[in-house]
Amino acid sequence: MTVVDEQVRYPLGKGTIMKRIDATTLSDWIESIEQLPYEVKRLTVNLNDEQLSSTYRSDGWTIRQLVHHLADSHSQAYNRIRTALTEYIPSIQIYDEQGWSELADYDLPIASSLMIIEGIHNRWVYLLKNLTAQQLKRTYEHAVDGELTVEQAIGLYAWHGEHHIAHIRLALTK
Amino acid sequence: MTVVDEQVRYPLGKGTIMKRIDATTLSDWIESIEQLPYEVKRLTVNLNDEQLSSTYRSDGWTIRQLVHHLADSHSQAYNRIRTALTEYIPSIQIYDEQGWSELADYDLPIASSLMIIEGIHNRWVYLLKNLTAQQLKRTYEHAVDGELTVEQAIGLYAWHGEHHIAHIRLALTK
Amino acid sequence: MTVVDEQVRYPLGKGTIMKRIDATTLSDWIESIEQLPYEVKRLTVNLNDEQLSSTYRSDGWTIRQLVHHLADSHSQAYNRIRTALTEYIPSIQIYDEQGWSELADYDLPIASSLMIIEGIHNRWVYLLKNLTAQQLKRTYEHAVDGELTVEQAIGLYAWHGEHHIAHIRLALTK
Amino acid sequence: MTVVDEQVRYPLGKGTIMKRIDATTLSDWIESIEQLPYEVKRLTVNLNDEQLSSTYRSDGWTIRQLVHHLADSHSQAYNRIRTALTEYIPSIQIYDEQGWSELADYDLPIASSLMIIEGIHNRWVYLLKNLTAQQLKRTYEHAVDGELTVEQAIGLYAWHGEHHIAHIRLALTK
Repeated sequence: MTVVDEQVRYPLGKGTIMKRIDATTLSDWIESIEQLPYEVKRLTVNLNDEQLSSTYRSDGWTIRQLVHHLADSHSQAYNRIRTALTEYIPSIQIYDEQGWSELADYDLPIASSLMIIEGIHNRWVYLLKNLTAQQLKRTYEHAVDGELTVEQAIGLYAWHGEHHIAHIRLALTK
Repeated sequence: MTVVDEQVRYPLGKGTIMKRIDATTLSDWIESIEQLPYEVKRLTVNLNDEQLSSTYRSDGWTIRQLVHHLADSHSQAYNRIRTALTEYIPSIQIYDEQGWSELADYDLPIASSLMIIEGIHNRWVYLLKNLTAQQLKRTYEHAVDGELTVEQAIGLYAWHGEHHIAHIRLALTK
Repeated sequence: MTVVDEQVRYPLGKGTIMKRIDATTLSDWIESIEQLPYEVKRLTVNLNDEQLSSTYRSDGWTIRQLVHHLADSHSQAYNRIRTALTEYIPSIQIYDEQGWSELADYDLPIASSLMIIEGIHNRWVYLLKNLTAQQLKRTYEHAVDGELTVEQAIGLYAWHGEHHIAHIRLALTK
Repeated sequence: MTVVDEQVRYPLGKGTIMKRIDATTLSDWIESIEQLPYEVKRLTVNLNDEQLSSTYRSDGWTIRQLVHHLADSHSQAYNRIRTALTEYIPSIQIYDEQGWSELADYDLPIASSLMIIEGIHNRWVYLLKNLTAQQLKRTYEHAVDGELTVEQAIGLYAWHGEHHIAHIRLALTK
């Protein structure tokens, strides 16, 4: 991958797993997760089919696919964190992101995924704001990312949301 | 469990896994999945906190918990079917339903879960209506239910939705 | 207008103002108003731009315009009834339906109007179910329809919703 | 009214009608109208019945009533502007704000009004962003406010939204 490719694929850089997380950082991440549904809506709710079919790089996902993917991915994220809260270091299954994005429902208008994203994030943020210090240190085991604490996962998904919002912004300038 | 208990817990009887599924049955199930979000909304959207806190049996979930549970469970169902469509006989993880229902977010107003249910079902129904005969025969392996075809899973979740709608109706008559 | 034209324009016949309205009729109308948002959603939520641009007759409104019009018209209807409930035989302003349908916002995706329709109907139906016999007899004065009681207006708008749903169904078969 | 009363009633001061409006001011107002639905949601979507029943001043509206009022008032505002765009200096009817807030539907959960606010603002903002210089100078005649241009009305309603958001914030600190 060239440097330019890398910059287009990762407009905000790659997500990193932080070792030490202070209260301000955690609260900024939760704030970012809280804002995501509104940010995505503001960018996409009034777009027509042609605009939704634009991509941020050749062979990259369209805006439509990015919105459906955010619904799927953050729904999984919310589930992973709840699994960590209710089981002891659970192993988390990964799913075939690319395969899912090729199923028929990824061609649909984005309205349904905007509802999913908003509903999930409302519930998720409330849960996150009510976690104890102990709950934040619980962990899950991910096949690729390894063992992550709940608060590390929060950071990962705050980045993940902003990462795809940057893709949507890029696609809109083309 | 007494017979009366059984009737309250399973107002429509227990869900059964069907061996042979004809086209009409399948299409009725998909129709039932399509109607669920509207049925749940009609029953619950205008309820106040006190009404949402009523239960269909002592120690049973409240209407509020039932709605949040439908969002969680059908989100998993939709994921399971997509996993069966994109992986070869995947093993499906089960989750701690009871544990999840005791987390802080199950106390929230139901509006967010009504959005999730509607968004998920819109996408799910479209996917189901576009499956080929071959895709309907793909399977996943569930720790409790065993190996299920996609069409058997459709039947299971059509039942599951109606099962909990019957609970909500019961709770509303109390 | 030829007979065929008339049948396409008014697939359910023209709305009529009923003199005597019994309890069953009134309750059927309110039920129809309650169902409308779900019926419209079921028919339109997964349509793409091209499908939304189809019409039920040449020179007729597209499905997209019909959905936006339902949001506007039923928002007015809800206002008219509330004006009749809070003022003495108020004169109701009419609006330029055709002119509004030519403004820029009628080109938008229908998701926003589906939200408006659902929100309005939820509140409206609750209000209607809680009216006293006396409130049902209050009136407003409409420039074209003349003096209408609240219950006559309920009948008119139940018809109006079904009338446009019939148009959407027609457009979908083309 | 004492000075303190005045400050609680009008936390941002009263709305004023501006004579000269430059492009930046206009664009800030439209931005404010665009943000309103998300701001209101962020503040209210997870509140329970008791929190929704709190007021920003004794005898003032509750948060619940403020949200329903925003749905009603901005729905009227959007209608007024479209009337000015399609008729020549139309006279605008005022409505009985206080009377409407005492009807049964103002007791409902806020979810329906949050949908109305979001749907209305999405369509309204798109319309406003697509107005020509000439359309911005069209006017309507209001019984209390006098003759207002479309751009003056935009300013008035940007203020109106922020005014009630300030009330909601106040009520949340009590």
